[in-house]
Amino acid sequence: VCICALLERQYDVRLAGVATEDRPAGRVPLSELNTDLETLAEFGGGVAGITRVAWSDALDSANRWLMHRGRGVGLDVSTDPAGNVFVGRPGSGTQGVLLGSHVDTVPNGGRYDGALGVLGALHAMRALGDDVAKRAGRIAVAAFMDEEGTRFGTDLFGSRAFVGDDLTELAGRVDREGVTLTEAMAERGYAFAELGGAAAVTEYGCYLELHIEQGPVLEEAGADVGIVTAIVGLLGLQVEMTGEANHAGTTPMHLRRDALAGGARAIGELRDLALAEAGITANVGTILVEPGGKNVVPGVCRFTVDVRAANPEAFAQLDHRVRTILLRIAGEEGLTVNVEELYRLEPLTFDAGLVDVVEASAMDETTACMRLPSGAGHDAMVVGRHIPTAMVFVPSRGGISHSPFEYTEPAHCDLGARVLARTIGRVLA
Amino acid sequence: VCICALLERQYDVRLAGVATEDRPAGRVPLSELNTDLETLAEFGGGVAGITRVAWSDALDSANRWLMHRGRGVGLDVSTDPAGNVFVGRPGSGTQGVLLGSHVDTVPNGGRYDGALGVLGALHAMRALGDDVAKRAGRIAVAAFMDEEGTRFGTDLFGSRAFVGDDLTELAGRVDREGVTLTEAMAERGYAFAELGGAAAVTEYGCYLELHIEQGPVLEEAGADVGIVTAIVGLLGLQVEMTGEANHAGTTPMHLRRDALAGGARAIGELRDLALAEAGITANVGTILVEPGGKNVVPGVCRFTVDVRAANPEAFAQLDHRVRTILLRIAGEEGLTVNVEELYRLEPLTFDAGLVDVVEASAMDETTACMRLPSGAGHDAMVVGRHIPTAMVFVPSRGGISHSPFEYTEPAHCDLGARVLARTIGRVLA
Repeated sequence: VCICALLERQYDVRLAGVATEDRPAGRVPLSELNTDLETLAEFGGGVAGITRVAWSDALDSANRWLMHRGRGVGLDVSTDPAGNVFVGRPGSGTQGVLLGSHVDTVPNGGRYDGALGVLGALHAMRALGDDVAKRAGRIAVAAFMDEEGTRFGTDLFGSRAFVGDDLTELAGRVDREGVTLTEAMAERGYAFAELGGAAAVTEYGCYLELHIEQGPVLEEAGADVGIVTAIVGLLGLQVEMTGEANHAGTTPMHLRRDALAGGARAIGELRDLALAEAGITANVGTILVEPGGKNVVPGVCRFTVDVRAANPEAFAQLDHRVRTILLRIAGEEGLTVNVEELYRLEPLTFDAGLVDVVEASAMDETTACMRLPSGAGHDAMVVGRHIPTAMVFVPSRGGISHSPFEYTEPAHCDLGARVLARTIGRVLA
Repeated sequence: VCICALLERQYDVRLAGVATEDRPAGRVPLSELNTDLETLAEFGGGVAGITRVAWSDALDSANRWLMHRGRGVGLDVSTDPAGNVFVGRPGSGTQGVLLGSHVDTVPNGGRYDGALGVLGALHAMRALGDDVAKRAGRIAVAAFMDEEGTRFGTDLFGSRAFVGDDLTELAGRVDREGVTLTEAMAERGYAFAELGGAAAVTEYGCYLELHIEQGPVLEEAGADVGIVTAIVGLLGLQVEMTGEANHAGTTPMHLRRDALAGGARAIGELRDLALAEAGITANVGTILVEPGGKNVVPGVCRFTVDVRAANPEAFAQLDHRVRTILLRIAGEEGLTVNVEELYRLEPLTFDAGLVDVVEASAMDETTACMRLPSGAGHDAMVVGRHIPTAMVFVPSRGGISHSPFEYTEPAHCDLGARVLARTIGRVLA
């Protein structure tokens, strides 16, 4: 019943359209945060969603508006050689607090992914009492450049530069038109060669990121706030099973070595593995067979496997468990199997003390909160390897993200910003 | 053990290469039939196999050689408006006997598919005693045009024209370069408009086709000759399962409606269906998912299903059985499913009396013969709907066909021609 209700809701959204559905019919005036979210959505916004890819006019304009908005509320603004934008104040205390997220989007994305974290942090900073602010060292919100990595496959580019990662190998990455990242940056007034200075992350004692959940867990549980405990580890594999292409009419069933039959079994068993254990997800998102004739038994089946787990021990075992399944099936089906690692990101467990503080702050606002891991990557997974880090989630309606149908209730946006402000207050207390 | 031995043999062939492996090292002189097969293989032959697609120079040259060869052994030659070539003699009796197969090939095909049937029939005719030949009415071997249908998707074109099928809808078919069938025929001196005269099939009392098996059944059974009882019916379906695309990291496993998970189950169950019942084959030869991102749960899965059965009752039930499986899985997975029929060819049971004659003739040559249905289509399935028809199979090494590695032993080629000759003798006795 749960699932059906959820899905119907999604279709309702789709039928109703974005424009009419997203605004509570003028009865309650929007908060400044939600008004700012609407304004930001104008940059790169169109009928098919919002497109603010890194190193584009749309993102440049959005960043200029963000700096203008920051100055307007009395904050300092600055940028760095990676194109990250910082809005904050120097402070007089010793404990630096960094907030942040990103302003870039995927093509035809939504108005909350990234944007809520940046604008929510801006308003959380404004909401801090002067006495609290005084206790802080530098406090700022970072709008990290190119979190999505859409154009050059350079995900988390800005936060990686910020923490001092060596990005040299990305300089020559080309987009679909053959433009290199170095050229695209130069066109926007940035020199790739200027990256690699002293890591600015050391100026801060902790990092907090507010984000939409981008999944359905909070909504399903009826929770208004998520206290994020960890970011899952990701393992991506390219699998190739090879049997023998044969005539689909003349080859008896028991003599076939059907690569797709093996692939289909693997897809089923990988799902069973993830269904049987909480905390593991598995996905086969691409599949291709050769030779690909309707009347030819597939000789080759290629597919990708994406498996995730937040628990470090569970994550460490995933590679072996997946390969064991693949090898057993290949053996039983008379196939050979080749497995290549496409990507591997270790899980990140957030700072336990800071997570407790986020939870206490959330509980001040609502009892409808819950702990959960993040199944998606965020700038927090980069910064969190250097300084104590935690995240706050608010619900995504229908779990939809990276889509014009992405939606988070205005009240939840405001709630997220308040939890952020309370957390900063407690950190600096 | 069977399978492994078979597969190793296939790999041996591949390693050894065609040229060295296919010719018995000069010890035994080749029969005239096998010499003719080698000669015919020169037309369109290259290192990657033989390419004699319909309406090409290579096929034209091969047909001219065939006519030359026919005249050389004292036979009459003629062509018809569909490009079919006939080599035979008028005869003085009343029982017309038609032999035949095709000379066109798939791209990079082998030297036996079609060619053996035409040349084997030519030599079978030569081998007939004068007293037998005298009892025949018109006796001829037909080299049917474009059995493979490679260029225009016009499979069995020549035999369909020969039996008087209305082919009007094929006139405008275009190849990859946008050339129509009508234009391609005109370029070769044929007028599409001249098709559709009186069906020439009525001149004959029966049809016999010798062909390589194109599958591994005879070889696996240790049989030298196959007596073909029927041609399987074919049902082709395009299936589309639709769930919901979702983020592979943030969507809990139990909330997914994964279209590929449904597709994978269907692939497994369709294979189980065919494995459980002798006489049924099932193949999923193409598959495609959308949106096709490594980290996106597939929202749509499209695949084709090819199911076959020689038994008319079994074939009649296949459509319902396949759809029942698909609907049940879709229901259990929360998917919708759409099924479109791509092709449907009813099975053809060969003339029981003629099949008995073929069997008796085969038994005169060898006890290592067996009855089997044909899993592939042949010109015999077109002609066989009009006059009593039967087929003779000889083994395909490793079951390989439509490949330069297609191979049938010279002794098996000769054996097939002798069975054909004996069959004609009995028919005319």
